[in-house]
Amino acid sequence: MAANPVHAAVEDQLLARFAAIVGARNVLTGEAEQAPYLTEWRGYYRGRTPAVLRPGSVEEIAAILRLANETGTPIVPQGGNTGLVGGQIPDESGREVVLSLDRLERIRAIDAEGGTITAEAGVVLERLQEAAAEAGMLFPLSLGAQGSCRIGGNISTNAGGTAVLAYGNTRSLVLGLEVVLPTGEIWNGLRGLVKDNSGYDLKQLFIGAEGTLGVVTAAVLKLFPRPRGQAVAFAAVPDAAAALKLFRHARDAAGSGLTAFELMPRFLIELLRDHLPGARDPLDNPHPWYVLMEISSGRGDADARELLESALSAGLESGTVRDATIAASLDQAKLFWRMRHAVSEIQKHAGGSIKHDVSVAVEKVPSFIEKGSAAVSALIPSVIPVPFGHLGDGNIHFNFTQPSGMDRKAFMSRAPEVHAAMTDVVVEFGGSIAAEHGIGRYKRELLKSVKSEVELEMMRKIKRAFDPHNILNPGRVI
Amino acid sequence: MAANPVHAAVEDQLLARFAAIVGARNVLTGEAEQAPYLTEWRGYYRGRTPAVLRPGSVEEIAAILRLANETGTPIVPQGGNTGLVGGQIPDESGREVVLSLDRLERIRAIDAEGGTITAEAGVVLERLQEAAAEAGMLFPLSLGAQGSCRIGGNISTNAGGTAVLAYGNTRSLVLGLEVVLPTGEIWNGLRGLVKDNSGYDLKQLFIGAEGTLGVVTAAVLKLFPRPRGQAVAFAAVPDAAAALKLFRHARDAAGSGLTAFELMPRFLIELLRDHLPGARDPLDNPHPWYVLMEISSGRGDADARELLESALSAGLESGTVRDATIAASLDQAKLFWRMRHAVSEIQKHAGGSIKHDVSVAVEKVPSFIEKGSAAVSALIPSVIPVPFGHLGDGNIHFNFTQPSGMDRKAFMSRAPEVHAAMTDVVVEFGGSIAAEHGIGRYKRELLKSVKSEVELEMMRKIKRAFDPHNILNPGRVI
Repeated sequence: MAANPVHAAVEDQLLARFAAIVGARNVLTGEAEQAPYLTEWRGYYRGRTPAVLRPGSVEEIAAILRLANETGTPIVPQGGNTGLVGGQIPDESGREVVLSLDRLERIRAIDAEGGTITAEAGVVLERLQEAAAEAGMLFPLSLGAQGSCRIGGNISTNAGGTAVLAYGNTRSLVLGLEVVLPTGEIWNGLRGLVKDNSGYDLKQLFIGAEGTLGVVTAAVLKLFPRPRGQAVAFAAVPDAAAALKLFRHARDAAGSGLTAFELMPRFLIELLRDHLPGARDPLDNPHPWYVLMEISSGRGDADARELLESALSAGLESGTVRDATIAASLDQAKLFWRMRHAVSEIQKHAGGSIKHDVSVAVEKVPSFIEKGSAAVSALIPSVIPVPFGHLGDGNIHFNFTQPSGMDRKAFMSRAPEVHAAMTDVVVEFGGSIAAEHGIGRYKRELLKSVKSEVELEMMRKIKRAFDPHNILNPGRVI
Repeated sequence: MAANPVHAAVEDQLLARFAAIVGARNVLTGEAEQAPYLTEWRGYYRGRTPAVLRPGSVEEIAAILRLANETGTPIVPQGGNTGLVGGQIPDESGREVVLSLDRLERIRAIDAEGGTITAEAGVVLERLQEAAAEAGMLFPLSLGAQGSCRIGGNISTNAGGTAVLAYGNTRSLVLGLEVVLPTGEIWNGLRGLVKDNSGYDLKQLFIGAEGTLGVVTAAVLKLFPRPRGQAVAFAAVPDAAAALKLFRHARDAAGSGLTAFELMPRFLIELLRDHLPGARDPLDNPHPWYVLMEISSGRGDADARELLESALSAGLESGTVRDATIAASLDQAKLFWRMRHAVSEIQKHAGGSIKHDVSVAVEKVPSFIEKGSAAVSALIPSVIPVPFGHLGDGNIHFNFTQPSGMDRKAFMSRAPEVHAAMTDVVVEFGGSIAAEHGIGRYKRELLKSVKSEVELEMMRKIKRAFDPHNILNPGRVI
């Protein structure tokens, strides 16, 4: 171990004590075995660590945190390592120990009657969706990384995704939590109650706290009846304002049955057509903007399709919809969704991309897109604005792709200016600089610049009260 | 002022300083003018205070709390004074100053397009509902006290009511808050965003904290499209298990369109028939249990009625429903709802009532009702169990009415035993001792007996971090 200079920072003795807790084979110190835990998939964050700990139980996690708290050892909890803001990657100091939840992957209970599932933090989201489906129920959380992200991470980041419109963020899917506190105490808050006003609603503190206040080890989550029918369509619209009008038509037609409403500019359709196997241009002619919309029905497919057709007809009549195609089969519906979920990854084929995960009030989305695009185009002429995402939630992934021909590095070096310009626009619109991906390390300084001192101080007070030695995910969020 | 001995506890000089903040006429010290603020409507709590302060602005509240924090003066915030657990009534010490929010009753903004309303804490719930309706929208929170409770109190207690099934508790209706902290700082968290993961979700701390962590002064609340159609029915069922089966039929038929599902025993129907003007027995023959159910539709009344009929038909066919009547007119629907909302008050006509606001997982409700009734009947033979309420949320108001002929006082003196027996049953079922009314003073000791030390200590840490001098609603909740 002495051969690796990283270990200099943490005494071998300390590692031995961690090994005594989790077993030597669950303490990863070799470069190759550590690698998957130290690099973010896009390559934006890369860190060093004396050890990756892979505990197998809640009690082991409690013992790890007790020891860390006693010795002042910084701990970085990690789920599926799909976070986009550097929250789950250790820093460059080589001091931060990674605590992986990937061995806690048991589904402890599933209760279709009662509509709950109790899962450990390391359960991969897709497996949770499948377990719910096998029980005849729906776990609605759905996002691009669902094949590898883990539910503990989803909870700790209050993940959003494409089903928020009808089912809410992860926060609204959580009924109860089990959490190990920074001091090593275990809080059993695994309740499955819809209504419980018995004291402060402590679970809310840990949801979205990005692992800075405690390590979520298990959760009771809500299941929903599976919709009996669904219909999915791509609709072409001339601009974002028309997309917003279509959103209203769809909501009018389907109410809470409108389960997804995703905006995409033409640029993404072309990238998908060219780079995603099986993808194709959904409509005969090109259009500047597309909406992927899904309507669910408790009555059946025919009913869902009827509602979807009625929303699209209203749109065609009022001139907001230029063309549309309803998925003719389940396979086609799956393809449409595969296209949507591939959107984040596909952008790498177009070179550098400066990204923003922001939100504004829904009705402000069109003017926000206009203002944001103009602000950045003024900095970098012929930049390609790529705003897309959850229009129905006001959550736009406001990315900017480099002008073709521009040097990637030169473009990416403009990121700070672009971020500053976008932050100004977000603040002007009363929006959020971090809609669904969180703060992590990426937006920590930015957070300080947009939040009031009163708010920052409240956050610090909570952090100090729960984690007096600042051992849990230090340098993230607050 | 010296004539009133209560004032001895707080120096005149302090009252003069409060008066300098809110103006002398907004400092109530006379017995008659204080009376409405010092008594809970059922008469269970009665307190004393040196003064009721009626500030007219957020800034005045901030100044009051700064002064209170500086001088260690206990402050009891009060909204519509409809709370049921003594949280809003000062204690007997005569030291606690009442901070009434009743002058903060401005609706600051309403945005039908964006689906939000921004209201001050003192706005009466019914006025909020009306303002939403005038803008063509729905504010769904609905409960018996809606004519006098105020939205700040609803938020501070995370009020439930009869629309939780479809729209969630008050917590899920709040997008943003403005709060004055115990130190007198104003937190402006009045955001109207659906998605915002920029740091800890601080508003969650104040929702349901019963005024112990800050004074909620205003909120941005969600509005919903008004359902185009509704249908309401009384259905008769033989027992609670049948009611649960009917709940499943209704949910199958209407999905999220099932907007209310309320259980009532025959005993309440008879009380309503005898004591509520205009009420009548909804069905020709008496039945042991009744369900008030409401289905809403985005399509219209005919569609809602069709869904309701299909749920009732399924219930009649499977033998779970014995008889049913669908409201034939809007007036009749209103009467059905008036009956439901009068249920809490009407019970006074039957003498003493020992009350429990508890919840269990929905599918456990029938056996919970059986066990709870048996446990208390074993203590007091011929006691009348009156379990009623929000079956669809698992939230039962599990009251016990005195046996006819028994002395009221003698019966009520048995309350501690009855509470203890019910607590045992609630704990055995993994339920909550405080489903929607909160903890207040009433259940503070009970809370300590059912929560783990880890959980209590987390609550204390938060309380200390926010309110180091323990001035805000001391002795409530934690």
